Amino acid sequence: MKGDESKAFAELEAIFHPRAIAVAGASAKAINQGHEYVRCLLEFSYRGAVYPINPNLDEVLGLKAYPSLLEVPGPVDYVISCIPAAGVLKLVDDCARKGVKAIHFFTARFSETGRQEAALLEEELKRRAQRAGIRIIGPNCMGLYHPKEGISFRPELPREAGPVGFLSQSGGNAVEFCYHGSLRGLRFSKVISYGNGLDLNEVDFLEYFARDEETRIIAVYVEGVSDGRRFLAALKRAAARKPVVTVKGGRTAAGTHAAASHTAALAGAQQVWRAAVRQAGALEVSTLEDLIDMLLAFAFLPVATGLRVGVVGGGGGRMVQSADLCEEAGLSVPSLPGEMREELRQRAPEIWDWVINPADQSILAGTAVTGMDILEMMAGRPEFDLLIGNVGEDWILELPIGPQLLQYVVERFIGVAGHTPKPLAVVLGPADSPEERRWRAVMEAHQRLASAGLAVYPTIERAGRAMAALVRYHRERQEQGAD
Amino acid sequence: MKGDESKAFAELEAIFHPRAIAVAGASAKAINQGHEYVRCLLEFSYRGAVYPINPNLDEVLGLKAYPSLLEVPGPVDYVISCIPAAGVLKLVDDCARKGVKAIHFFTARFSETGRQEAALLEEELKRRAQRAGIRIIGPNCMGLYHPKEGISFRPELPREAGPVGFLSQSGGNAVEFCYHGSLRGLRFSKVISYGNGLDLNEVDFLEYFARDEETRIIAVYVEGVSDGRRFLAALKRAAARKPVVTVKGGRTAAGTHAAASHTAALAGAQQVWRAAVRQAGALEVSTLEDLIDMLLAFAFLPVATGLRVGVVGGGGGRMVQSADLCEEAGLSVPSLPGEMREELRQRAPEIWDWVINPADQSILAGTAVTGMDILEMMAGRPEFDLLIGNVGEDWILELPIGPQLLQYVVERFIGVAGHTPKPLAVVLGPADSPEERRWRAVMEAHQRLASAGLAVYPTIERAGRAMAALVRYHRERQEQGAD
Repeated sequence: MKGDESKAFAELEAIFHPRAIAVAGASAKAINQGHEYVRCLLEFSYRGAVYPINPNLDEVLGLKAYPSLLEVPGPVDYVISCIPAAGVLKLVDDCARKGVKAIHFFTARFSETGRQEAALLEEELKRRAQRAGIRIIGPNCMGLYHPKEGISFRPELPREAGPVGFLSQSGGNAVEFCYHGSLRGLRFSKVISYGNGLDLNEVDFLEYFARDEETRIIAVYVEGVSDGRRFLAALKRAAARKPVVTVKGGRTAAGTHAAASHTAALAGAQQVWRAAVRQAGALEVSTLEDLIDMLLAFAFLPVATGLRVGVVGGGGGRMVQSADLCEEAGLSVPSLPGEMREELRQRAPEIWDWVINPADQSILAGTAVTGMDILEMMAGRPEFDLLIGNVGEDWILELPIGPQLLQYVVERFIGVAGHTPKPLAVVLGPADSPEERRWRAVMEAHQRLASAGLAVYPTIERAGRAMAALVRYHRERQEQGAD
Repeated sequence: MKGDESKAFAELEAIFHPRAIAVAGASAKAINQGHEYVRCLLEFSYRGAVYPINPNLDEVLGLKAYPSLLEVPGPVDYVISCIPAAGVLKLVDDCARKGVKAIHFFTARFSETGRQEAALLEEELKRRAQRAGIRIIGPNCMGLYHPKEGISFRPELPREAGPVGFLSQSGGNAVEFCYHGSLRGLRFSKVISYGNGLDLNEVDFLEYFARDEETRIIAVYVEGVSDGRRFLAALKRAAARKPVVTVKGGRTAAGTHAAASHTAALAGAQQVWRAAVRQAGALEVSTLEDLIDMLLAFAFLPVATGLRVGVVGGGGGRMVQSADLCEEAGLSVPSLPGEMREELRQRAPEIWDWVINPADQSILAGTAVTGMDILEMMAGRPEFDLLIGNVGEDWILELPIGPQLLQYVVERFIGVAGHTPKPLAVVLGPADSPEERRWRAVMEAHQRLASAGLAVYPTIERAGRAMAALVRYHRERQEQGAD
């Protein structure tokens, strides 16, 4: 068993580190994914040889194109197939002759169409590949994004690697998640979109992620699993080693119907699923936004097991909403401790007895104390376990010196985060203003915070929910003696 | 009683249509709100006279400034006070001599500080104003945004008026809500931020909105009410005439504590509040984002009482998530009707039996049928009550012709909305990309959709929730024979 696991791990390691890649169905047109895979290998500086395959082209993006895989001069470990489904059996046969180890089929229109002839073709594909000892990723998927190796399915994703391994049955979700997650500062070890999971499936990749040292946090989007018992066992093993956050597609009757048409997945009853995921020690969330929120917490925030949050920033309404939404998320919002009130009395006699937790930024104007000062005081007090800072960009950017002030506030947040062992979440709304000045200022603030490793949330509600879930996770681990 | 109501309405009408406005504490510095009120009156083309009052200035924004209200040559109906709290009694006395009808106190630091001397000053302020027959808005609030009359508390808000009346105890929430709501296409009849509600309070304004013909939908943010019984009676009367959507600040113990420090509000038990609001026929939501979502539905979507939704757009993962999140929101996601499948068989034999509801855009590539065609078919079928379109901008904008294609898709959505009596919600993510091309394209798409009167939601989850609440509202009204 131990040996089998090591063998499976070694086999996937080899697949994820191919010495040369051929793109079957490489295209000269950027609208085609067969163009984008080649482009990514070049732009992400993949070190091995890249061979575009297309009988109708001499070159793709400056690389010589070959009429067939068999004409490629050197060895090929990994093939990305973007050809139509009708040609896949021939391709597998070529791969067998060429000694290819794995094929990723971007090619779709197999069992997910619900048509018998397509399902039969898929079965035959599997049979021939197995006979030749070739492993399959897909079909009907985006394949690999492995920035450290220089492999990507989209050119707009980050070149740098990071701690998150993402396993996604859906290619679209993989792309949208990686793009939007990267804007919020997430970076990835490996992302695998595996579609119909004809050969290598969710269990194989989950086992791999559990052992992969590049992966510190595992994210899973799955619509259905081929073997529930094996999946849950793998989930439990993975969750024992690192945080695993899951989204299940096909939670409802309509979703199950949709999943069948999308990845031919047979989704199961939601209550059973949820209970099993929890019992395995993994987390479950409902949307990709929630998934990003939760991964940010695991990626950027230190371990915390206390629920007492100190909140600063924004005006009075924001303060009241912050208090309500934090409590509703399961956090507690304690009063300011006596020593802190005493310090405020010395430094800001005008408002010392008025300011509370959450601290209303607007009443501090004209005093010697800023919201950031209060945040720093909270960071230094044992009565607070967690910190949340509202940037209040709507107010800052109304000022003529808004952009500079916003920069200053951002640097103060980064300073506090660098000096406290407590988790600090920053609330900054989306940079979706029609005014270029506002868009640019908020975007730059967001990028600076994210690149400094701060967890930024678009609303206090989402910050509070992610922090509460983080604390619950660490508490449960602590109770089990695992942390 | 009827006469009293008419009298109260007429009094507020007069306050909302002052013949001349003085700004006490007018400032030459844009950082001060005493500057911004004057600026707004000029930029929003207020038709009456505007008198800046400041003993240290000769002019503000090109207008002659007066050392005191008593030096103003013409009559003054309405005064905006931005002076420190220490000067307010003198100001009220001046207003009494000048025959002023109403004062809005932006001035703060009264009972909300929790200090006895401040509370006593507030009481004295009220006594003197009452003796002189002067009505008070505030203190500790932003006052009025009444675009039709040319009055605003912030210069960045829209000049055009619209159907939403918003009553907000919090000034900060009023500003943030109006700004972000306006970006999503909401326009306002009158917005009133009333702070501590010393004289005119939530009940007066709610009664006014119920009768105000410019107001078709009422939004309420309240932290506490001075008289629960009167408030609920007013809420019931208002809700009998038009949709009322409320957010309660101070739902939790921490929120109640914060509300006391913010607007001196005494917030009550949340369960009692929620039940009472529902019984009054009003809706309750938890955040300002939810409030905007709900108002968009009331402002832009036609009446609907059926829950069957047809969904198009996005890739396979989005489709599965759409199905799940719509069902979880309380909508139903029916299968495609036989006639529609027959039409698809004629037009797109390659995929007719594969495409379902929600329709996966990605499988339509290369066929004669687009997602928009399917949306139009759904619009024409009696089996669907509601429509949701995912723009799928992440995918569109990856294409070289992305921005033009996005414009085309947007115009198609507008076309469908113009030809169907069914509510159509459009899902388009925030324009928060760091790439200027993407930001601009999404922003322009959003603005075009919003200005054409389409309800745009950032996620399918929020679109589904708002639509389900809209349908429930109309169903209840129908059951009560009110619609």
